[in-house]
Amino acid sequence: MALAVITDPGKPWTRRSFSPRFLEGRAWLREQFMGAGMSVRLDAGANLIARLEGSVAGAPPIMLGSHSDTVPSGGRFDGTAGILTALEAVRALQASGYQFRHPIEIVDFLAEEPSEYGLSCVGSRAMVGELDAKMLTYTNAQGETLSEAIVRVGGDPAAIASMPRPTIAGYLELHIEQGVVLESNKLDLGLVTGIAGITRVEIVLKGAADHAGSTLMQYRRDASLPAAELVLLVAQQAHAFAARKDGHFVATAGVLEISPNAANVVPGGARMILDIRAEKPALVDEFVALLDRESAAIAARAKVDRERFAILSQNPPAPCDAHLRDLLGRSAEKLGYSTTTLASGAGHDAAFISHIGPSAMLFIPCRGGKSHTPEEWSEPEQLAVGAATLYEAIRLLDGQNI
Amino acid sequence: MALAVITDPGKPWTRRSFSPRFLEGRAWLREQFMGAGMSVRLDAGANLIARLEGSVAGAPPIMLGSHSDTVPSGGRFDGTAGILTALEAVRALQASGYQFRHPIEIVDFLAEEPSEYGLSCVGSRAMVGELDAKMLTYTNAQGETLSEAIVRVGGDPAAIASMPRPTIAGYLELHIEQGVVLESNKLDLGLVTGIAGITRVEIVLKGAADHAGSTLMQYRRDASLPAAELVLLVAQQAHAFAARKDGHFVATAGVLEISPNAANVVPGGARMILDIRAEKPALVDEFVALLDRESAAIAARAKVDRERFAILSQNPPAPCDAHLRDLLGRSAEKLGYSTTTLASGAGHDAAFISHIGPSAMLFIPCRGGKSHTPEEWSEPEQLAVGAATLYEAIRLLDGQNI
Repeated sequence: MALAVITDPGKPWTRRSFSPRFLEGRAWLREQFMGAGMSVRLDAGANLIARLEGSVAGAPPIMLGSHSDTVPSGGRFDGTAGILTALEAVRALQASGYQFRHPIEIVDFLAEEPSEYGLSCVGSRAMVGELDAKMLTYTNAQGETLSEAIVRVGGDPAAIASMPRPTIAGYLELHIEQGVVLESNKLDLGLVTGIAGITRVEIVLKGAADHAGSTLMQYRRDASLPAAELVLLVAQQAHAFAARKDGHFVATAGVLEISPNAANVVPGGARMILDIRAEKPALVDEFVALLDRESAAIAARAKVDRERFAILSQNPPAPCDAHLRDLLGRSAEKLGYSTTTLASGAGHDAAFISHIGPSAMLFIPCRGGKSHTPEEWSEPEQLAVGAATLYEAIRLLDGQNI
Repeated sequence: MALAVITDPGKPWTRRSFSPRFLEGRAWLREQFMGAGMSVRLDAGANLIARLEGSVAGAPPIMLGSHSDTVPSGGRFDGTAGILTALEAVRALQASGYQFRHPIEIVDFLAEEPSEYGLSCVGSRAMVGELDAKMLTYTNAQGETLSEAIVRVGGDPAAIASMPRPTIAGYLELHIEQGVVLESNKLDLGLVTGIAGITRVEIVLKGAADHAGSTLMQYRRDASLPAAELVLLVAQQAHAFAARKDGHFVATAGVLEISPNAANVVPGGARMILDIRAEKPALVDEFVALLDRESAAIAARAKVDRERFAILSQNPPAPCDAHLRDLLGRSAEKLGYSTTTLASGAGHDAAFISHIGPSAMLFIPCRGGKSHTPEEWSEPEQLAVGAATLYEAIRLLDGQNI
């Protein structure tokens, strides 16, 4: 709550990446890390990294973390829960007299949420060598490049490409579920099997924007009609694909715009962006092929042109490390917490960190599954259950892998 | 074309009511009227009225006209065709040596198109005593009231309420069809049976704006799904109502907005505005009742709240005067032009003028039915056919009714 109140006033809870509030939040975090005896630095990608040395020379660090930025009018747990439960686990381990063999690093990754520069997971991409030169040229509405923004918050974009990819013993990220599987089933913790891949498809339909009063029904080429059919098809087919129970599967028509969007004009144009998420790439391929086929047929039946059917982006799924998941499961079991395995439908920094070493995620429940809204809430006890499980898992991981 | 080139540069063809271009257009019109020996004045509602006196003292005027304002990026015929064919008919009658018995008035009604003040048919409403005090307080985006704007273009809003409602021998308005009935059936002219009533209905649906990645399909309350069902229902039922052939019937879901309209969020809200037009008020009532019933049922099935179902506005249909339509039909027949009767689905100043005296409309074809777009086009010959028919009809009307 002390970090949460560092918010844009009048628009709680907002701490946008690259903003003055974001830097205030990081200054607060820096103090907490230093209070726990950790050293703090920024890497070239402006990730804020707190570190505690271990007793075994040259051992790779155990990495923990998440992100401190929020969406506009977001919540107080998405991201910060992962950083602060990690800090609490490290503090508790220190207080118990535990001697770390591995170094411990807690990372506040830069700009995990979609930033003003049109990119998310900026810091974790940079850390694993996937923030390319083109991305650094993306601009915000004021024309500032992402590269300039990274300099502004203390990074060194010119050095990102040559930054060595870290060697890690493992990465553990606690996060609120952002769904209702745990709450609905009255479970304490979710052991994440993998982070779903995200595919975005854009469909543009073009009919004729005729007068809504004088154009008889039989003469219309209303682009909103095939768009409406597609909205219903996406939901119906997503239910069917999910019912196969072949891993997480959801699909959403989240963007739907008709033009000119005027009461007295037949909609001449429609544009939609579909978001398809699955653990199995084959399901995504099958779904996209079905959409391609059906959208062409539906448009043709409606005498409307399908001007565009394009895959805008395709992030592959990132399976979580089975061994780390097992460590988290054994830790929860030892403490008597109930668990289930489930997939993450949301993207996370862990998806990128999995490219450089074993990574796993632990979900705690959040009320009503609400996230990216001021109502987002997890009980202190739910956070404590997560922190205690991290505590045990860090001990298990620290005793291995050297 | 000389009037059309008075347009906002770079955005042809735009001559918005109350704008400097609009006043330039009216200055040009004033010159043409005066060149035809007509006197020109503005009434309290800032309608520009050109008048030619007749030989019979006290005879009510034959009123002709339409409007010179356009929608943004509109066409060169919607409105101006009615004013300029009327002027041409009057000039030709004068050139033929014809002596008018009735006075002739050609009116450029103020702001027929939806204005920046959220109101259309401003001038014709004022003339018939239906521009009320509340409407005069409507503001544009800059905060100027409609009343202030009327003063700015030469009207006297304080005098509108006490302005006597004119007595007229009849009102004739030529207009482009804005549909494809004439073109599709290769007909010269449309004799308008009536101007359809326009009813606008707003429906607001509220579900839950959950995370598009982590919210499983079975836990969603996606407001875009019942909205899509309603879009399809409106079109399907409008076809069925039109097929009864009980006068003009069209219905359009022209406005559809989902919120937050983001690729990664399940649509939590949807808002639509429906536009229903018919000659028979009973059909509108039946359609609205069906929508009310079905939208409630569809929302309930989708576990979405129907927050609002409201009639935003309801303009009754305005039948055209049968006798004037007969004069137009006899005129066309005399000249050998083919005609059909048809309804106007679009609103026109004639709908308001019909409240103070017999009114009728004559439609000419326009290419592809296109209107409110720069592509709007009628051939010079099609305009000439309309002007010649007005010429004959004015003679017939002038010989009667005294």
